[in-house]
Amino acid sequence: MSKIVELPLKGRYFSRILENISKPKDWKLFATIMTGKMLGLIAVIAAMIFLPNIIGGTPAHAADTYTAHETAVINSLNTVWTLVAAFLVFGMQAGFVMLEAGFARKRETVNILVECVLDTAICGISFWAIGYAFMFGAGNGFIGQQYFFLQNVPATYGSTGVAILAHWIFQFAFADTASTITSGAMIGRTSFRGDIIYSIFVTALIYPIIGHWAWGPDGFLALMGTPGHFMPSLGQPFRDFAGSSVVHTIGGMVSLAGAIVLGPRIGRIFLRDDKKRGGLPAAHSLPLATIGAFLLWFGWYGFNPGSTLSAMDFEGIGRVAANTTLAACTGSLATMLCALWIGPFKGKFDTGFALNGMLAGLVAITAPCYWVSPFGSVIIGLVAGLVVFGGVYFMEFLRIDDPVGAVSVHGFAGIWGTLSLGLFASGQFGSTGPLGADNTSVVKGLFYGGGFDVLKAQAIGSFTITAATLLVSFIVMFAVSKLPYPYKLRVEPEGETGPGGLDVWEHGAEAYTN
Amino acid sequence: MSKIVELPLKGRYFSRILENISKPKDWKLFATIMTGKMLGLIAVIAAMIFLPNIIGGTPAHAADTYTAHETAVINSLNTVWTLVAAFLVFGMQAGFVMLEAGFARKRETVNILVECVLDTAICGISFWAIGYAFMFGAGNGFIGQQYFFLQNVPATYGSTGVAILAHWIFQFAFADTASTITSGAMIGRTSFRGDIIYSIFVTALIYPIIGHWAWGPDGFLALMGTPGHFMPSLGQPFRDFAGSSVVHTIGGMVSLAGAIVLGPRIGRIFLRDDKKRGGLPAAHSLPLATIGAFLLWFGWYGFNPGSTLSAMDFEGIGRVAANTTLAACTGSLATMLCALWIGPFKGKFDTGFALNGMLAGLVAITAPCYWVSPFGSVIIGLVAGLVVFGGVYFMEFLRIDDPVGAVSVHGFAGIWGTLSLGLFASGQFGSTGPLGADNTSVVKGLFYGGGFDVLKAQAIGSFTITAATLLVSFIVMFAVSKLPYPYKLRVEPEGETGPGGLDVWEHGAEAYTN
Amino acid sequence: MSKIVELPLKGRYFSRILENISKPKDWKLFATIMTGKMLGLIAVIAAMIFLPNIIGGTPAHAADTYTAHETAVINSLNTVWTLVAAFLVFGMQAGFVMLEAGFARKRETVNILVECVLDTAICGISFWAIGYAFMFGAGNGFIGQQYFFLQNVPATYGSTGVAILAHWIFQFAFADTASTITSGAMIGRTSFRGDIIYSIFVTALIYPIIGHWAWGPDGFLALMGTPGHFMPSLGQPFRDFAGSSVVHTIGGMVSLAGAIVLGPRIGRIFLRDDKKRGGLPAAHSLPLATIGAFLLWFGWYGFNPGSTLSAMDFEGIGRVAANTTLAACTGSLATMLCALWIGPFKGKFDTGFALNGMLAGLVAITAPCYWVSPFGSVIIGLVAGLVVFGGVYFMEFLRIDDPVGAVSVHGFAGIWGTLSLGLFASGQFGSTGPLGADNTSVVKGLFYGGGFDVLKAQAIGSFTITAATLLVSFIVMFAVSKLPYPYKLRVEPEGETGPGGLDVWEHGAEAYTN
Repeated sequence: MSKIVELPLKGRYFSRILENISKPKDWKLFATIMTGKMLGLIAVIAAMIFLPNIIGGTPAHAADTYTAHETAVINSLNTVWTLVAAFLVFGMQAGFVMLEAGFARKRETVNILVECVLDTAICGISFWAIGYAFMFGAGNGFIGQQYFFLQNVPATYGSTGVAILAHWIFQFAFADTASTITSGAMIGRTSFRGDIIYSIFVTALIYPIIGHWAWGPDGFLALMGTPGHFMPSLGQPFRDFAGSSVVHTIGGMVSLAGAIVLGPRIGRIFLRDDKKRGGLPAAHSLPLATIGAFLLWFGWYGFNPGSTLSAMDFEGIGRVAANTTLAACTGSLATMLCALWIGPFKGKFDTGFALNGMLAGLVAITAPCYWVSPFGSVIIGLVAGLVVFGGVYFMEFLRIDDPVGAVSVHGFAGIWGTLSLGLFASGQFGSTGPLGADNTSVVKGLFYGGGFDVLKAQAIGSFTITAATLLVSFIVMFAVSKLPYPYKLRVEPEGETGPGGLDVWEHGAEAYTN
Repeated sequence: MSKIVELPLKGRYFSRILENISKPKDWKLFATIMTGKMLGLIAVIAAMIFLPNIIGGTPAHAADTYTAHETAVINSLNTVWTLVAAFLVFGMQAGFVMLEAGFARKRETVNILVECVLDTAICGISFWAIGYAFMFGAGNGFIGQQYFFLQNVPATYGSTGVAILAHWIFQFAFADTASTITSGAMIGRTSFRGDIIYSIFVTALIYPIIGHWAWGPDGFLALMGTPGHFMPSLGQPFRDFAGSSVVHTIGGMVSLAGAIVLGPRIGRIFLRDDKKRGGLPAAHSLPLATIGAFLLWFGWYGFNPGSTLSAMDFEGIGRVAANTTLAACTGSLATMLCALWIGPFKGKFDTGFALNGMLAGLVAITAPCYWVSPFGSVIIGLVAGLVVFGGVYFMEFLRIDDPVGAVSVHGFAGIWGTLSLGLFASGQFGSTGPLGADNTSVVKGLFYGGGFDVLKAQAIGSFTITAATLLVSFIVMFAVSKLPYPYKLRVEPEGETGPGGLDVWEHGAEAYTN
Repeated sequence: MSKIVELPLKGRYFSRILENISKPKDWKLFATIMTGKMLGLIAVIAAMIFLPNIIGGTPAHAADTYTAHETAVINSLNTVWTLVAAFLVFGMQAGFVMLEAGFARKRETVNILVECVLDTAICGISFWAIGYAFMFGAGNGFIGQQYFFLQNVPATYGSTGVAILAHWIFQFAFADTASTITSGAMIGRTSFRGDIIYSIFVTALIYPIIGHWAWGPDGFLALMGTPGHFMPSLGQPFRDFAGSSVVHTIGGMVSLAGAIVLGPRIGRIFLRDDKKRGGLPAAHSLPLATIGAFLLWFGWYGFNPGSTLSAMDFEGIGRVAANTTLAACTGSLATMLCALWIGPFKGKFDTGFALNGMLAGLVAITAPCYWVSPFGSVIIGLVAGLVVFGGVYFMEFLRIDDPVGAVSVHGFAGIWGTLSLGLFASGQFGSTGPLGADNTSVVKGLFYGGGFDVLKAQAIGSFTITAATLLVSFIVMFAVSKLPYPYKLRVEPEGETGPGGLDVWEHGAEAYTN
């Protein structure tokens, strides 16, 4: 407990296992089977691509006159739906705590726990005071300026029929997710005071302001492509249904900036530096991490389907839920097969990759989930799995220490998911609304005959959000790293290497006692 | 960590404890009290049996004309209800992971985790491709033939008013449950590749096809007793409201076939072979198992009430939820009292039995929950608790190694629950529907004056499903057990006994590190 | 494992850490910063107090005529809402198990697990048999006398339009919460048979009867202030929206009585007796405790918003959910800052206090959540955080051993929350109802110009419930403590100090094995 744990524990039994699977004749058998598998996979994918488009179109509900009673019921139903979704999204905090703590070393576990609690508290207060106002208040294309301290708010948000405080809690839960993502990549060497300082920037400024661009009532990316706004000739707005970019890319890029500014944990060995040990960090509790991932998937059913803010679009919420499921399944499978067949630990069914592939599928489907078919979701998830596998080893190659893979899962897969809408939008679905779907103007991607316009809009939006977040986050992280002790970003070396580790240094307690 | 753990750890302190509770005078006191308790229990049960029937009947909602607006709201409400239920059922995966991992030894824990992740991925993909089509597509009495790859699906499922993709995700979550159940009885000695192979059979073929018989639009058990179909003279179809047979018996019987074909784990000591040690396998983390059981109970509130597929039958969903609760309570209590009073560890309040009794109550009430009274549920749960207690020791007697008790909990209690409808159906409730309950033709069991017809129909359905599943599963398991290494069902002995156990052998990692 | 663990492990590294943070020049810097922080906090609070009232009023929905179809939809929607809320509240059991087990020592963990399972079973059965009848049946001001064994119940509860069995399960989940709270303060030295006996009293008698006073259809506190009832001249009833008093104060006061009658665990060292060691009990698993707290917060979204029993009051449920969130955030922050700045462990970000502050905020907002503004909730949570911090050290001073802080969190913060309505009720909101809010008669507290009437009514109700619970609980606990072995309340000393601790003594198993 009291000496530094060397991270790449996986190598411990490696040589012994190699003896069993590396005998020449076994390798030949193995290669034959693998080749067959690969060909099979290619055949399946090819067959899918040529399958006709799936699921029939939804007729638009005519926006005829509703009685006062009907409106009251519809607003109630939409609010209940949004609230239940908000609760599920909030429940993801339990999942994040488990995932991040599970992937951490024992000595830095309490730090994760308390960080998640405090980040949530800070997020709630700052999103009440200014975050919601910056993000969802009307203002200009760059920032909102209404509803500070939730004052002077109308009964319902915009035209959704959802009680505005129900909308607030839904969006608070989103902001909290973005905030929590960042701590994953910065595990084990961030000072607690430093964490508090940068978290305030993230939840009160970075996330709400950049989020306003895409989701605010007058955000410049939301209005892009319409006359009198940003890039009117494009004819397409930036679309991010539930936040592959707004929540996940922002969270992932803040993580990346943080991980780079911090540098790796003391004792972290990368693959390039010691191939035998393999380079992946040790997770102190795989059960915690796995259960956390399942709880995140569970919460994602609030994240994506809830983003309709409308129960009346009942075909839409069903479709979003099914698409979310399928992408998670194929993401998990793709990453696990990569690890099994081509990774440095080939022959093993790796837990970490299975979980991160699942999450990558979920992150990627988050932007396009409303506009793609189940078949499209299967492919989007599959590719997300490949992205996260490559991403993790790319980070390893760059010697950036990201203990939970947050940059790959949320950053890289978020970018892929945002772009994928431009490829896979099936041309059957338009927009959601409080009285049901409106399919008068549908979204069609490149692979479905829609040309490059949607893809261009997605690329512009994704690049804008990614670049802006990275730039601002670097400035914030760098500034915090230059503060005097004990406010600076990285903890003192004794905090990392001392008895009891970061947990005793910052929190005076160990995660587990008798 | 690196030597084989001997399973029955419970015996470790047993002799010491015996000294305390086995003094003659204490035994006499104990016997007196226990006799009093037994008499009290009998009195309570007798009193209950003679209590009049409980809760008044629900009037059928007349199927008069609804406006387009009303229909839109009702379809939305029913879809929201079904989706929320689907999310809860999916959440049971977190519960299963915890329960199974908690009941496993440390050395086989990672295996459980990765299996649950991969089983879910496989289930999602196969249920999208062919499972849903086989189960819920129209075809013939034995198999469905519509909706492969979710193509050409209508907007809503059948006459339910539920968006079909919402129905798909609800049913996917059910299929995933059946699939996950099987891994519990096969913990610790199943090869990972073997698990993948048999899981594909279960989720793509066994579960959907046998499930079609009971739940398909033209399944032969669903249409049984009607003119021109199977056993027309019976006048009763097979009824399984939420899957005591379809989900749990199938899952339990696949488990049984797997556990028999596999044989016990190396080092497993059964009660007959060493009475002192007691024979029950050691659970590596009782907190994990307990929390998992509570999460399963939580998810069951989606499983049973959600199976109305209708929020408009609001009295029905309330009744189902209350009945589910009561059966869980009495199941838990019954099993715990058995363990306290008559088991080989008497005098102890056993965790494993408390949890398995709770789950047995839930499994048993799953088939009859819509048609029985709260009082009936109390008794059904109580008996389920006795069934699981006997079942666990019966398996022990047969020297079949079922580390989590999956066969007893899901298999035996599932059979009991399916039959119990024939005894306890209260004669007040008919069928559920998208506009509310339809009680024109009620279901009445033996104890409520309905004669043997319902019981017969239940017995035929339960036997058909149980026997068919066992037969097909044995064939599949046996075939997989004969595949060449590394695809065969059982892992090599070194995989079980080597350093780090199955987890390092198959996954290259241990569940817990520093 | 087999020797008694000395509780205050925190002190272990304390002297070493002190060397680092206590150098003179650091202290000066520290003091300067802290002073600045304090001033900043005061400024923020002052600014808040003088901010205008927040959020506009909700117009009352006219109770005009609804068609049969509309009524069917509304009843269904309200029932679905109540059921989903009930499921979330039930889910809190998983949270409580984790929180209590996490805060316990390893040797008493299994005991917590089995207690929670059995308490739930007992609660379900007794609430079915007599609890619901005593609490929600009509009778007189002191006790209800309808619906024993759920017989002769109407289709819907009262005027709510909620199916009565849905109402039953919602209320069962509340009763179960009250019951589970009590076990937290009595961890580690209560005999299992003693626990069963007092739990039956709590769930079958104490909670339902005292609860009837405030929530029963004719409870004397519910009807207080109306002509012909208790204190007619007061003009205000006692209001407890979701149970700060009914659930939490009752749970907390039973806990207090139990903890006093039991006395502390063997080996528990209090702050007064050994200042160096610090006096707080060691938590065996902070990850468990933290995840449990987040799950409790998640479940609270059923507890508070669900207590409208109405989805049609959609602005009300949104407001309650947002208020609940804000109080949890400020509660957590306040307690953590207290521990950081003024506690005996200053300089550390303490996990236990962060969690208990969060829970205290949730407990406190439970009574007033419907009638206060988001700003009011921020302050109520903040004060609750201070209350729990003081409460924990007050209990420490009194040498009462409360391993999880249940008395402070549920008892003291519950009293504060109940009273806070009299201060912060914003004068904008009246009452909720099945067709929406009715704001014809609003509730206005002292700080919003409403005078002392509401505060008086709250004080009377809170005092009545607190005093009655304490009195009856002392009698019950004292009586159980005088029963003969093995039924008496406290376990034999060997049960606490023997090998394997309470877990092996009572349950024949340890929480964790290999």
